[in-house]
Amino acid sequence: MTYSVEAQITNDLTHEEALKILLEAKKNAEKSDVLVNIAIVDAGANLKAFIRMDESFLGSIDVAIKKAKTARYFNIDTGKLGELTQPGGIIYNIELTNGGLVSFPGGLPIKNKDGKIIGAIGVSGGTIDQDRAIATAGAKAIID
Amino acid sequence: MTYSVEAQITNDLTHEEALKILLEAKKNAEKSDVLVNIAIVDAGANLKAFIRMDESFLGSIDVAIKKAKTARYFNIDTGKLGELTQPGGIIYNIELTNGGLVSFPGGLPIKNKDGKIIGAIGVSGGTIDQDRAIATAGAKAIID
Amino acid sequence: MTYSVEAQITNDLTHEEALKILLEAKKNAEKSDVLVNIAIVDAGANLKAFIRMDESFLGSIDVAIKKAKTARYFNIDTGKLGELTQPGGIIYNIELTNGGLVSFPGGLPIKNKDGKIIGAIGVSGGTIDQDRAIATAGAKAIID
Amino acid sequence: MTYSVEAQITNDLTHEEALKILLEAKKNAEKSDVLVNIAIVDAGANLKAFIRMDESFLGSIDVAIKKAKTARYFNIDTGKLGELTQPGGIIYNIELTNGGLVSFPGGLPIKNKDGKIIGAIGVSGGTIDQDRAIATAGAKAIID
Repeated sequence: MTYSVEAQITNDLTHEEALKILLEAKKNAEKSDVLVNIAIVDAGANLKAFIRMDESFLGSIDVAIKKAKTARYFNIDTGKLGELTQPGGIIYNIELTNGGLVSFPGGLPIKNKDGKIIGAIGVSGGTIDQDRAIATAGAKAIID
Repeated sequence: MTYSVEAQITNDLTHEEALKILLEAKKNAEKSDVLVNIAIVDAGANLKAFIRMDESFLGSIDVAIKKAKTARYFNIDTGKLGELTQPGGIIYNIELTNGGLVSFPGGLPIKNKDGKIIGAIGVSGGTIDQDRAIATAGAKAIID
Repeated sequence: MTYSVEAQITNDLTHEEALKILLEAKKNAEKSDVLVNIAIVDAGANLKAFIRMDESFLGSIDVAIKKAKTARYFNIDTGKLGELTQPGGIIYNIELTNGGLVSFPGGLPIKNKDGKIIGAIGVSGGTIDQDRAIATAGAKAIID
Repeated sequence: MTYSVEAQITNDLTHEEALKILLEAKKNAEKSDVLVNIAIVDAGANLKAFIRMDESFLGSIDVAIKKAKTARYFNIDTGKLGELTQPGGIIYNIELTNGGLVSFPGGLPIKNKDGKIIGAIGVSGGTIDQDRAIATAGAKAIID
């Protein structure tokens, strides 16, 4: 057996990128008159940035964070994950792992300009369509 | 009532067996180009060995470990367990016990040459069919 | 305010490195006749590899994993952390954070040849001096 | 016994204030070359805003959040709380309550211009003196 002696090079979002994503998502939410919690995790799925808008749901703090973690844990749109976790689905009840996953829309991987995943965003507080739209707007902020 | 004064004889996999299973499962995953997490528990359902392949899902750490534990907790292929846990099933929502079970394929009991269960393996990261195939290849490593 | 648009480049240990460290630590433990659990986490403090030697403490599974996580959480020799967490110490009772930290020897950051931290190792089962020596031997495996 | 039919009037920091405090604390940390995690909770001790600076300790995510919560739970400088929680102290081991408290410096209540507590800030990553100084700078941002 031979071993690689070099660490792999990974890409991780910076706090300035996280802040840019957070503020862009917040601006998008304000424009649409939606009150949300926004969470961003890094490539290691560890919390990097967070904001809760005034009057948004208290219960969405944890939902937003879990959406971001879920999106990075499985490099997936949390809504797409949910299609597989329903009764009869191929990974039914996977939500019970990892201290609790969220499998409805609002969590998205964040990619850099090269298409590499560098973190994830989770949005909670609006409808699932609103949450996903706001997450998408946030994730795009560092690509455009 | 009388009490036995002798401890029961159990059969437990060794760390060398666990390592052999782990590396065989990993080799199988590499051959199939699948990125997985592989966990092995002993007869007591306690973690014995683990490896996470580069770029495999972070969320699969816990899923792989829970698959292995589930397989040993009930001496069952986790995929078979899932047939019983669906809505209307006879053990609906048993996944909520034991700190979280996984009831889709990828977890298998490990048996010795005499057919006695000595531990379990859990694989997560590929499709459920890939996970099960890799777990099967691993479990076989100490029999062939 | 200006923003960086590039993700930061981080260094993360590979599974081959993790395996090399794990086996070297195990060899060192065997040479010293010490029964241990060995855990390795990556740069994101997520479990990467693990092995429990036969007859080693079951309670050391969690201790080894928590030592590795603690060492990476604070980029520190867990024994040095313990000097600061005693009654009257400047970070007394920090062990109660992060789901439980371990603040006695046996956890060490893993560095690459450039001195960059790419993960951490945790060893538990022997005396604290033995655990630290085994962790040190493991961490060195990818530098020598 | 009579009951008030009016809800009590509370004062709660806004997300714009939280953001202002967060960015001011971050600016202060950058000026002092300290890498920290900064957490802000509202009057209900619920997370309102958070940022983790690049290369700061992963273990400080939870410490910063717990410092902020602790400061609001008891309306106290967390360092002052620590003077009471030592062995023999009047509230020895209170850190074990509330899912884990932090009782060393870096957590401070946030007051409005009228001196009313409207939330709290927690900073972790530097020395305890640096953490407290950065928390103080942040908390002041909405008064000056």
